[in-house]
Amino acid sequence: MKKSAVVLLSGGIDSSTTLFIAKKNGYKCFALIFDYGQRNRREIDSAKKIAKKAKDPFALLEIKFPWKGSALLDKKIRIPHKRLRSIPPTYVPARNTIFLSYALSFAESIGASRIFIGAHTEDYSGYPDCRPGFFKAFNRVKNLGTKIGKEIKIATPLIYKTKAQIIKLGLNLGIPYHLTWSCYEGGKRPCGKCDSCYYRLKGFREAGVEDPLKL
Amino acid sequence: MKKSAVVLLSGGIDSSTTLFIAKKNGYKCFALIFDYGQRNRREIDSAKKIAKKAKDPFALLEIKFPWKGSALLDKKIRIPHKRLRSIPPTYVPARNTIFLSYALSFAESIGASRIFIGAHTEDYSGYPDCRPGFFKAFNRVKNLGTKIGKEIKIATPLIYKTKAQIIKLGLNLGIPYHLTWSCYEGGKRPCGKCDSCYYRLKGFREAGVEDPLKL
Repeated sequence: MKKSAVVLLSGGIDSSTTLFIAKKNGYKCFALIFDYGQRNRREIDSAKKIAKKAKDPFALLEIKFPWKGSALLDKKIRIPHKRLRSIPPTYVPARNTIFLSYALSFAESIGASRIFIGAHTEDYSGYPDCRPGFFKAFNRVKNLGTKIGKEIKIATPLIYKTKAQIIKLGLNLGIPYHLTWSCYEGGKRPCGKCDSCYYRLKGFREAGVEDPLKL
Repeated sequence: MKKSAVVLLSGGIDSSTTLFIAKKNGYKCFALIFDYGQRNRREIDSAKKIAKKAKDPFALLEIKFPWKGSALLDKKIRIPHKRLRSIPPTYVPARNTIFLSYALSFAESIGASRIFIGAHTEDYSGYPDCRPGFFKAFNRVKNLGTKIGKEIKIATPLIYKTKAQIIKLGLNLGIPYHLTWSCYEGGKRPCGKCDSCYYRLKGFREAGVEDPLKL
């Protein structure tokens, strides 16, 4: 039987690249997509399109954050168009902890041996739940809080890569980046100014290629 | 301002007692109740009734486990009526990890300083996510994966108590145990035979009091 993996898929460049890396490594992938009330809802459609292109099954989970407290959950909070030194208002409390918990439950239920997550430290907005230490800590929760957790590994193949490196890697894998979505604003076209647009554009520029998704 | 806490409330004896302990310790409590498709759905009503009796606000979160893999999620899997030495089929993959992740997100969003969970080791069915080590590991996830995680403490006031000790404590706090629900089977009356009924009945017997919820 082919080894299988759960892949957290948001529809952006990092998670899409991670899905294709997992496939290249021989995993039968189950993509896990979250509709958590994010204002950048277009990423959900992008995630579905990417999963379809990769010919992988996906589960779309609608989850609730009734408590708001993030610019991605509450349109009254403005998305910053400048880089901040502190954790930005787009931070969603405990988001990756929740996502990984579901991935863990899913992986244990279907007997998958890997959970792939496309987080990385460089070019990131200072989110605490993208730090290597966080994944190390979650690894212990996985081992102690489940039945077969030790048989499941958490893979973060992009953790120390720059966005430019990720893009180059993805282009070699033939990833249809025109289908991905990064902008936080939730408009019809990318704003080009939010953190997510900024790092995407910078990444393509440094990779020496044009972003197929036009502003 | 009164200090506040998020309390995970299932509607059973342990979590109900924990809610009243949190109140006694001066916390304004926000109860978090999960409808996760459990077959013992009556516990959801019990949880709501307990929260109302305690005069605390509650959030009822409907969450999905589309992957089944537990006797509490799938009626085709039988609930054991004998005590098992291994992790029983009522184990729900990563359930407490998911519940704590939501509690963490909730607590961080509202600025609560405590998360209360009524798990305990003795009299329990061997669930890995009720072990002290699991909570210690989750504590590190909380510290590393959030913005203000270090300001939030996870409280497990019952962790080393027996069910009889919990019941005695709860009766002193005036907890309306007739409103709680423990049975896994999801019938109109407790089955008296599943693990949850077994430990409840044993607890009341050892505490020397009658269970106000009749079989």
